[in-house]
Amino acid sequence: MASPNPENGCLNKLKALPQNIWNKVVEKANKAKKMAKDDPRKIIHSLKVGLALTLVSLFFYFKPTYDGFGVSAMWAVLTVIVVFEYSAGATMGRGLNRMLATLIGSSLGFGAHWIATHSGKTGEPILIGIFVFIFAGIVTFVRFFPEMKARYDYGLLILVLTFCLISVSGYRDDEVIHMAHKRVTTIVIGSIISVVICILICPVWIGEDLHNSIAGNLEKLGNFLEGFGSEYFGTSEGGQANNTNKSFLQGYKSVLASKSSEETMANLARWEPCHGRFRFRHPWKQYLKVGTLARECAYKVDALNCYLHAETQTPMEMRRKIKEMCARISSETGKALKELASTVKTMTKSSKEDTHIANSKEAVEDLKCMLKTGLWEDALVLEIIPAAAVASLLIDIITRTEKIAESVQELALLAHFKSPNTTSTSRQQHLLHRGTIQPTSDRSNHIIVIDMPASE
Amino acid sequence: MASPNPENGCLNKLKALPQNIWNKVVEKANKAKKMAKDDPRKIIHSLKVGLALTLVSLFFYFKPTYDGFGVSAMWAVLTVIVVFEYSAGATMGRGLNRMLATLIGSSLGFGAHWIATHSGKTGEPILIGIFVFIFAGIVTFVRFFPEMKARYDYGLLILVLTFCLISVSGYRDDEVIHMAHKRVTTIVIGSIISVVICILICPVWIGEDLHNSIAGNLEKLGNFLEGFGSEYFGTSEGGQANNTNKSFLQGYKSVLASKSSEETMANLARWEPCHGRFRFRHPWKQYLKVGTLARECAYKVDALNCYLHAETQTPMEMRRKIKEMCARISSETGKALKELASTVKTMTKSSKEDTHIANSKEAVEDLKCMLKTGLWEDALVLEIIPAAAVASLLIDIITRTEKIAESVQELALLAHFKSPNTTSTSRQQHLLHRGTIQPTSDRSNHIIVIDMPASE
Repeated sequence: MASPNPENGCLNKLKALPQNIWNKVVEKANKAKKMAKDDPRKIIHSLKVGLALTLVSLFFYFKPTYDGFGVSAMWAVLTVIVVFEYSAGATMGRGLNRMLATLIGSSLGFGAHWIATHSGKTGEPILIGIFVFIFAGIVTFVRFFPEMKARYDYGLLILVLTFCLISVSGYRDDEVIHMAHKRVTTIVIGSIISVVICILICPVWIGEDLHNSIAGNLEKLGNFLEGFGSEYFGTSEGGQANNTNKSFLQGYKSVLASKSSEETMANLARWEPCHGRFRFRHPWKQYLKVGTLARECAYKVDALNCYLHAETQTPMEMRRKIKEMCARISSETGKALKELASTVKTMTKSSKEDTHIANSKEAVEDLKCMLKTGLWEDALVLEIIPAAAVASLLIDIITRTEKIAESVQELALLAHFKSPNTTSTSRQQHLLHRGTIQPTSDRSNHIIVIDMPASE
Repeated sequence: MASPNPENGCLNKLKALPQNIWNKVVEKANKAKKMAKDDPRKIIHSLKVGLALTLVSLFFYFKPTYDGFGVSAMWAVLTVIVVFEYSAGATMGRGLNRMLATLIGSSLGFGAHWIATHSGKTGEPILIGIFVFIFAGIVTFVRFFPEMKARYDYGLLILVLTFCLISVSGYRDDEVIHMAHKRVTTIVIGSIISVVICILICPVWIGEDLHNSIAGNLEKLGNFLEGFGSEYFGTSEGGQANNTNKSFLQGYKSVLASKSSEETMANLARWEPCHGRFRFRHPWKQYLKVGTLARECAYKVDALNCYLHAETQTPMEMRRKIKEMCARISSETGKALKELASTVKTMTKSSKEDTHIANSKEAVEDLKCMLKTGLWEDALVLEIIPAAAVASLLIDIITRTEKIAESVQELALLAHFKSPNTTSTSRQQHLLHRGTIQPTSDRSNHIIVIDMPASE
């Protein structure tokens, strides 16, 4: 556009091309460097895939094994490439799916092949065509079932694949059996190499990722709420100056859209064997329940965040009247959520969150009493609205937090969370005695004993 | 538990087993029937997969072609199974990825094989091992880049696979070229069969699904808002009796978690050729923008929904005072959203939504005036809170709706939506003249001209 001569412009563009390409390469390299720094597990995974493939390739390359398995040996290479996933759960899921499906598909394929070959020269292709059509159609339809899609999608794909390869092969019966046997063996070898390398060298447990993500989400919500009070009621004058550490106000946003990633993680985690603090049948589904409740809470937090930046605001002197109570509700709820996050993270039961919830409920009662005494009587309704909405949202968030606490408690039961050791227990007892609730092991009763003043 | 004798219990269980299995089978069959009825495209897809596989299997079965391609012919069967996806976009994406990656991988693999074989008997396995390790490691790392993962993940997988199969094969140079050529040819045949059958027989265009899903989401939000006024202010006495048609109050919930499915659809839609009303470079990314704004609006709608079922409510006689204005805001915003939905659905520009937005803004001004006149002066703040929060949310939703209108307008420009035909235009002009805004083609200015009274 700057150059009036289009030819000159083209020439300049051509001259700038190497520089532009170089700039792009540098940009991509910097991106890759940043990604590797942020999560070194990705580099380790890449090296693991390289290692597994090199091992299986050399196994394929050296003649003795190669001659034994023939061309089928390349199924082992192929298996490593398609089975080796980032997380142990995904790799095990794919490996098991592939092995089982190959075994079943080979048997069924051999059956179909046997029936077809024993029905005459003209009948053979017709029968094989019909078998393939019906089998592929049914299995493809079964893949649409949500529960099958979540766990066995890959297995069903391989089932069709193996069935077709074996039934259509056109060999004699004994050759087909030999071929099926080689295919099963090489695929089992490939799957086992993948799973072993994936689990033995710096494994990435997707269950642990889910566990940490749920705890992290609760913490992000807690951070927001802890900081919200001083932010909204303008007590963080010092904080206003340095905008750098306001990130806690944005952290919750990732919680809003966490549904599908959590569901994927829970599905993959179910394939993982026991590891570290997680047993084989760890209650991964309960994590999804906690996640859903955390998301509902995040919608409310999002609404609160809008009032921080709203155009129409309640004048600060009016807000100050409810400041003490609201700030207390917000910070105590935040503390309760962070306590729940730490309960999940450390897998150690705690009842501190009950104290915090009880404290914030006390504050709600105080706030309600104050609101009944005709505070803001001379104010315009229009000015009252934002602060009133904030108060209403905070009251709502307590209910959500209680529900989260309940579901975390359920998780603690199902996953056999540790009880806190004696020193910390005595500290908790001390704390509890300052609060209003009795230390009791039956949490569900205990929730009912406390009355529910919040809306909804 | 009911039986005191455990052996009897076991026997009873064993007796009930066939019945239980039968019940399960019936249950699954009913589920399948329902699924097929809800979306017959799933049945058609299953039949299409069966057909494609039968075709390619017979092509593999009949000796003339079989001898020509040898064992590699099974790559064609394999290709159809892994490439044939539900939607045309996914099938084309996988097909193109697979063909290109096989071509590039074969060339690189042959290069690596040539270098290795020309470096002596001892050097060969070492060099091949190093090549495979480095190549697999780098490509695996590249797969982590979000932009690569979204579009080329499958291609990168096949790139490593082909590179390994060709470079490791251990054949002589001419044999390797022959093998690579056969692999590329069979994979191209398999991919083309899949793509052709997928597109020619009742194709499922994922772009159209995305298009309809975005329009559907806007409509769900509109339905909620249209019905909310009479629901909250208790004018739908008749409606209260029959709870069956309250589904419009729940429809918006699916909008909350639509992020990841919309992103997947947009990624796949980019592979689709022009079809029906959609050109090749249809602005799919703009749909994501509309989707994000719709989701933000849905968070607000979710908050409104909570106030429908809240425990603490503003007394009905107090609500009645703001009923007229609030119900008008709600219903006009709802109409605007439904108009936007219909704009997207029919791909025809409309300016009716401007009239509805202008109407609801008038209602906001009226509401604000009323709130300034000291309405509810003798009421308790606690009682005011829920109704005030509802009013504030409704004002917020108008801002969101305006943003959605802007982004739909942008979409209309980018995707060359049709202009309405003359008869409907004159009707619109008539409508516009009753409103406050001038019909102008430059929408972005027009948005700025109207003042933004809402919060945020």
